[in-house]
Amino acid sequence: MLKTNLSAMPCPIARSLDRVGEWWSILILRDCFYGETRFDGFKKSLGIAPNMLTRRLNDLVESGLLERHRYSDKPPRDEYRLTEAGRDFRPVMLAMLAWGNKHFAPEGKTIILRDSVTGAEADPVLVDANTGIPITLARHFAAAGPAATESTHQRMHRAAERRAAATSGEPA
Amino acid sequence: MLKTNLSAMPCPIARSLDRVGEWWSILILRDCFYGETRFDGFKKSLGIAPNMLTRRLNDLVESGLLERHRYSDKPPRDEYRLTEAGRDFRPVMLAMLAWGNKHFAPEGKTIILRDSVTGAEADPVLVDANTGIPITLARHFAAAGPAATESTHQRMHRAAERRAAATSGEPA
Repeated sequence: MLKTNLSAMPCPIARSLDRVGEWWSILILRDCFYGETRFDGFKKSLGIAPNMLTRRLNDLVESGLLERHRYSDKPPRDEYRLTEAGRDFRPVMLAMLAWGNKHFAPEGKTIILRDSVTGAEADPVLVDANTGIPITLARHFAAAGPAATESTHQRMHRAAERRAAATSGEPA
Repeated sequence: MLKTNLSAMPCPIARSLDRVGEWWSILILRDCFYGETRFDGFKKSLGIAPNMLTRRLNDLVESGLLERHRYSDKPPRDEYRLTEAGRDFRPVMLAMLAWGNKHFAPEGKTIILRDSVTGAEADPVLVDANTGIPITLARHFAAAGPAATESTHQRMHRAAERRAAATSGEPA
């Protein structure tokens, strides 16, 4: 967990960051999606100091993204498995993969996503499940939801004013 | 930038984190998507210390996600605008928004995404642009790409073995 209390912010992005807003945590989750479950495996893959790895694994368990399962009693050994909330982080990870491949892979793609049925490379894009239309800045905007606080309403109102100004070419 | 050199890792996720793997940076980008461009605006929205904000803005400019534009000469004042690479971070942000709304919003959604044409709430999901099929753990897997290093090939090979073991119910 972080020093500033992000989870108290009325913003789904800030609250998500409170769970994984530390890059070791995201790389641990990445390895979980590759099927890694054990302390020594994470340590070897990440080259992370053991005390830091212990802390990050504890945080991920406490945040509800990993579950501990004992696989040996003598000596006592736990493995770590993704919870439903942990598995649901995968689209964030894959959006990051696509972004990294597009902008930060001058030598070409080191990792791609494949469709196991066709064998073809998959091209992960975000669409609106209700319409099938790709999500774009031109068409889709963030807006206050049913549980929006007063400060969220104000923030969304300012964002709407800026969008209107940008469209009309006037300064906000 | 971070102390460990993530950008040297042959992994598109690690390289992405090297650009934004710090939660202030992600919240600054969030505010940019809401149309914020100015130092004082970020400061007020985030409640961040000025020296920290300066450092994070400089990092984002250096990473190529924001561009500085002078909007006043006397006094000298810059504003910050998203570059193409910065705008392309939006799917990561929106996948995070959907994840936060699903798992960390017990009181209901404070922020949603709307389709400006229909006015309806959008439901952002990741699909394969080539087939239109939603990306799932059951169907889509990460694999070595054309520029994969030997260590990436090994990592993907281990992941494939674990998937096969999980499917057959055998321990990996």
